[in-house]
Amino acid sequence: MNWRPLSSKELQAAEHYVRLAMAQAELAAQTGNAPFGAVIVDALGEVVAAEHNRVREALDPSAHAEINAIRVACRRMQMPTLEGYLLYFNKEPCPMCLVCAIEAKLSAVYYGDPDDGSPPVALPAAEIVRRAAVDHRVQVHGGILAEETRHHREDLLRRYSS
Amino acid sequence: MNWRPLSSKELQAAEHYVRLAMAQAELAAQTGNAPFGAVIVDALGEVVAAEHNRVREALDPSAHAEINAIRVACRRMQMPTLEGYLLYFNKEPCPMCLVCAIEAKLSAVYYGDPDDGSPPVALPAAEIVRRAAVDHRVQVHGGILAEETRHHREDLLRRYSS
Repeated sequence: MNWRPLSSKELQAAEHYVRLAMAQAELAAQTGNAPFGAVIVDALGEVVAAEHNRVREALDPSAHAEINAIRVACRRMQMPTLEGYLLYFNKEPCPMCLVCAIEAKLSAVYYGDPDDGSPPVALPAAEIVRRAAVDHRVQVHGGILAEETRHHREDLLRRYSS
Repeated sequence: MNWRPLSSKELQAAEHYVRLAMAQAELAAQTGNAPFGAVIVDALGEVVAAEHNRVREALDPSAHAEINAIRVACRRMQMPTLEGYLLYFNKEPCPMCLVCAIEAKLSAVYYGDPDDGSPPVALPAAEIVRRAAVDHRVQVHGGILAEETRHHREDLLRRYSS
């Protein structure tokens, strides 16, 4: 796995952006979507995309938070790829989204709690990164505020599920 | 792998729709995109989406032919999933697109030649389907007109690459 320990400064920044992703997850839940949010940040720390899951509102099974954020960032930067950019998400990304992040050449993905549920396809992020071509090895840092992201989603599901 | 032999009638139909996907791939190449096309067909054989790769024109790394076709079909049918629908593609789908097909609950995916290149993430379709949850096991039928799809893409790349 393409991984290295985070410095305390990096961890602090990661926690800040994962909290922004959690705020997006809240927006998702409020609009009847699954409680997931993602932000993309440039090398200077500026947020270039903050998006949430829109599968239900858009009737689009590909409209996961991370893919929406990648689309918004590419459109905003007028680039088909996002070298040097970082993605933050409030849970371990699903295989579709992590492969999209790899296709988009994002430099790193930071996320909250690991996927301990039963996703449609059981492919852990670590394994997908191991299978990526050498020139597409995104860095992956999981477990950022893991307890907090999991409890937050559980709370959103309780409050907004009908 | 969730697979069964095709009857000669099914194979004939599959070849017909894979050829439509090849025509979409030609449109992709003509518009400066990678030479990939996909069609989605309902249970009666009516085409509900015919789309091509639009990564370069849309500056969207998620705009692969299959994902575009899934988006169009869901919008057209006003449904977030596509149970009972079939997807045809002119090559083995990448992991992002096959997972999207699984998320969309498509009933079957038919494709041309296997992926013998070096994709960003080396995850064969057969393996992804094996990892899918039991209630998400899309049927996958590869090798439909495999020689023809491969030669067609090579020809498109020769004719349209600048």
